[in-house]
Amino acid sequence: MSENNCLFCRIIAGEIPSNKVYEDDLAFAFHDINPQAPTHVLIIPKKHITSLTEASKIDQALLGHLTLVAAKLADQLSVSAGGYRTVINTGAGAGQSVWHIHVHLLGGRELGWPPG
Amino acid sequence: MSENNCLFCRIIAGEIPSNKVYEDDLAFAFHDINPQAPTHVLIIPKKHITSLTEASKIDQALLGHLTLVAAKLADQLSVSAGGYRTVINTGAGAGQSVWHIHVHLLGGRELGWPPG
Repeated sequence: MSENNCLFCRIIAGEIPSNKVYEDDLAFAFHDINPQAPTHVLIIPKKHITSLTEASKIDQALLGHLTLVAAKLADQLSVSAGGYRTVINTGAGAGQSVWHIHVHLLGGRELGWPPG
Repeated sequence: MSENNCLFCRIIAGEIPSNKVYEDDLAFAFHDINPQAPTHVLIIPKKHITSLTEASKIDQALLGHLTLVAAKLADQLSVSAGGYRTVINTGAGAGQSVWHIHVHLLGGRELGWPPG
């Protein structure tokens, strides 16, 4: 399920340190090292999925879980009332730079439009 | 499941026109009337859910489905290779303006960072 050369798989395994905010059987979340908002957390599946394009029907519940974890963390990190944004980048042209699917959770400031 | 005063419930019901790109038993998708990219589609559940904050565990599969529909539409609309971004705004501070949860799918151009 994990890949040796994947940064996020290595973070999940504890081989590379991260500022963890959440973990369960299926998901792991940590603060982005280059935050774009006062709260900027990445929620990732423990299963290695390269990108949303590579996700399939068997990942449906897992994708829903990641989204619900984002909402839960928004509450726990007190950004829910002020508003928050969840973002998935797919492909280099959209800014994806780690090839392990991740949901960005941003909050704690006004978020402009367009979203990039 | 739908609400009389909800713009998106009325779009799903066909009471308000939209430029539809996809529909199944659970989801509906149409072009954003104020597009922020060459491709900008909104994917919404037929079930009325006010926002991600109001979504619960019973909506997990539905949320995953919306995400997979976004990926499928990115392929069909030929923005997958160039990269695409999916975004959910939750709360006015994040730019949510219609109180029926929706996934923005943006593609067809370079997408900057931060995402708003």
